[in-house]
Amino acid sequence: MSSDPAGPLTRAEAERADAADDLAGVRDRFQLPAGVVYLDGNSLGALPTAVLQAVRELIEQQWGRDLITSWNSHDWWTLPGRIGDRIGQLIGAAPGQVMCGDSTSVQLFQALVGGCRLRPAGSVIITDATNFPTDQYIADSVGQLLGLRVVRIHPSELGRYLSPEVAVVSFSQVDYRTGELFDAAGITQAVQDAGAIMLWDLCHSAGALPVELDAIGADLAVGCTYKYLNGGPGSPAFIYLAQRHQQLLQLPLTGWHGHRTPFDLEQRYQAAESVEQARIGTPPLLSMAALYSALSVFDGVDLKAVRAKSLALTDLAIAFADDRLARFGVEVVTPRAAERRGSQVSLRMPAAYQVCQALIERGVIGDFRAPDLLRLGFTPLYLSQVEVYDALSVLAEILADGSYREARFAARGAVT
Amino acid sequence: MSSDPAGPLTRAEAERADAADDLAGVRDRFQLPAGVVYLDGNSLGALPTAVLQAVRELIEQQWGRDLITSWNSHDWWTLPGRIGDRIGQLIGAAPGQVMCGDSTSVQLFQALVGGCRLRPAGSVIITDATNFPTDQYIADSVGQLLGLRVVRIHPSELGRYLSPEVAVVSFSQVDYRTGELFDAAGITQAVQDAGAIMLWDLCHSAGALPVELDAIGADLAVGCTYKYLNGGPGSPAFIYLAQRHQQLLQLPLTGWHGHRTPFDLEQRYQAAESVEQARIGTPPLLSMAALYSALSVFDGVDLKAVRAKSLALTDLAIAFADDRLARFGVEVVTPRAAERRGSQVSLRMPAAYQVCQALIERGVIGDFRAPDLLRLGFTPLYLSQVEVYDALSVLAEILADGSYREARFAARGAVT
Repeated sequence: MSSDPAGPLTRAEAERADAADDLAGVRDRFQLPAGVVYLDGNSLGALPTAVLQAVRELIEQQWGRDLITSWNSHDWWTLPGRIGDRIGQLIGAAPGQVMCGDSTSVQLFQALVGGCRLRPAGSVIITDATNFPTDQYIADSVGQLLGLRVVRIHPSELGRYLSPEVAVVSFSQVDYRTGELFDAAGITQAVQDAGAIMLWDLCHSAGALPVELDAIGADLAVGCTYKYLNGGPGSPAFIYLAQRHQQLLQLPLTGWHGHRTPFDLEQRYQAAESVEQARIGTPPLLSMAALYSALSVFDGVDLKAVRAKSLALTDLAIAFADDRLARFGVEVVTPRAAERRGSQVSLRMPAAYQVCQALIERGVIGDFRAPDLLRLGFTPLYLSQVEVYDALSVLAEILADGSYREARFAARGAVT
Repeated sequence: MSSDPAGPLTRAEAERADAADDLAGVRDRFQLPAGVVYLDGNSLGALPTAVLQAVRELIEQQWGRDLITSWNSHDWWTLPGRIGDRIGQLIGAAPGQVMCGDSTSVQLFQALVGGCRLRPAGSVIITDATNFPTDQYIADSVGQLLGLRVVRIHPSELGRYLSPEVAVVSFSQVDYRTGELFDAAGITQAVQDAGAIMLWDLCHSAGALPVELDAIGADLAVGCTYKYLNGGPGSPAFIYLAQRHQQLLQLPLTGWHGHRTPFDLEQRYQAAESVEQARIGTPPLLSMAALYSALSVFDGVDLKAVRAKSLALTDLAIAFADDRLARFGVEVVTPRAAERRGSQVSLRMPAAYQVCQALIERGVIGDFRAPDLLRLGFTPLYLSQVEVYDALSVLAEILADGSYREARFAARGAVT
């Protein structure tokens, strides 16, 4: 897979790149609507074909027929941990460290409180001032509950803010607006050298690029599963608890599923010593079953190949923007250096909202981030170079035509 | 619907009662396996027929075809609130006070922290010493976070423990083991007279009997939706925030969905002033869609009729146990007075675990609660008097036969 920063700037070149694409066959594992180029897999991943049958079986054969006995006979009880381990394979975590469940917001709360309690002498939580809102809101809430100060910085400023006062640093590995990829290994090391706990939010990196949590000595991480992991709308999130912390962690959401001996129904909570401590209440099994089957699209897929293709796709988008969109006032916001780039390209432009709507009307789905960003996500599992080339050509036509300025679009919300 | 405490003690009497059952037709809204009498709807409600199609549509037509645009075009964004209002109709809550989402454990945490913050001078949380474990564990966790003492009592002792020190009292309306129904109106009044906040856990009452939250002046409540509300395994829970508290509440799980203007993606959390503040992160849409369609089984159903039939079914079970099971050492643990009885009957007996397994092998599904309880749940929407009569007759045969004592059963966990 070429990562030539110039990118293929003719459709024929894009076709040649697709012909050499080892991942091209993976697209058949998804159901994508005809006539659409879907550049919003960084918000909601596309539907894996396996999902419908898996959910249908859960509804009819398990819930409907076997009813309550399914907790044992169909291994509902162990499903969150099995999904956790499967996700672990995609984020560089050995078995027994990842648990699936709840939303990213809830998992951030668990991890932040747990992390701060590992550093009881600390008085500061550091978060990214451009981090996704939930990350910042939860940091403020945890700070209020535990009496810690929350300091907002940009990750590039971290060196100046690390001190023995810091309990936890909470960053996203990829900035949701700009697509900037941060140096997880270096930041983790620096944070740990300062005596603090590093909490990574992997929402925009899990499934899009190799995340090597164990290898970088990560402490805690969370992430969602409905973006590059394609688990479906609102599919349960995950939390990573490094093995070495599992004995000492004290998570605040002490639901009975996380108890050491849950079926003894004891009066006092005793956390499981394993990653099972990260379970909370009864998990949403339909959404869990969908996610579990969705993860099968990664069977046999090498994340290094995913990353190589991701860079080739974003290289193409950047080169196209430089060559053919700059004249319309379009600016590439995403870092050009491959090692600082996630799997999206964000383009700053006038009237970005209207342009985004005009694109959607022509079958190119990206999203808008206020005030002036068009955000394009590139999921290597189901996108081709030709699709990206065609989508950007549509964008060039829209910008050249200019009629989007007069078009009226219904206001709509944006979902992460 | 008769509530004759003697109950119909012949099969012919049970048949006559069924013939007069106004709710008999509702059973057709469920898919129940042949040859099974399902007495565990208090753990996992049966499958409503409407669910499969609703989930299939969400997967294929919404997620698969319309992708991210479904948040607007299929009203995903408003679904948690619409489900909340639908549940509200079943628990006596006017619109705008119930939000659906997350697990009961998470909702208990939200409500307990929120409730304690409404009473900042309080230093005590009271919970039920026989309450479901999660309720107790979460109370302990919140007590630890906020510096409050947790006092465990039996609800019957409440009068002696109420004082100005109490911030929140947290009880289940129906005891999950014994089926005892507590006086929600009287307890709420007493707690409020003492200056405290009352938090009700409705897991074992919502959908089984009329719960009149607004009428009793309730403060806060939570509950699950997979028991008598039949939402499916792990379907999202709900939280009730009385209108009069919504301005002052400060919930701790400050996910971006609960923000006043979530799509502005602001740095600082400002809670929505409405019940929308109880949203946290992105909800599990597949499980939500299943729940929403499942609630349609209540369309046109009067909860007073549900309650009357529930009492008739439990009357029958109690009368049958007194008349034909007492000789085997079976004792009715559930209160006999109708006003103190939920929709289950718990029978204490020797070798209850083995008896429960032998029942399951003969197609009668109840559950076991250590050390010596056989717990039978009666869902009026899909059970008949004849089924209950037949199930108890099987129980009588098993007890008379005695072979369950020698049978070997695989150990299995119990799920609430």
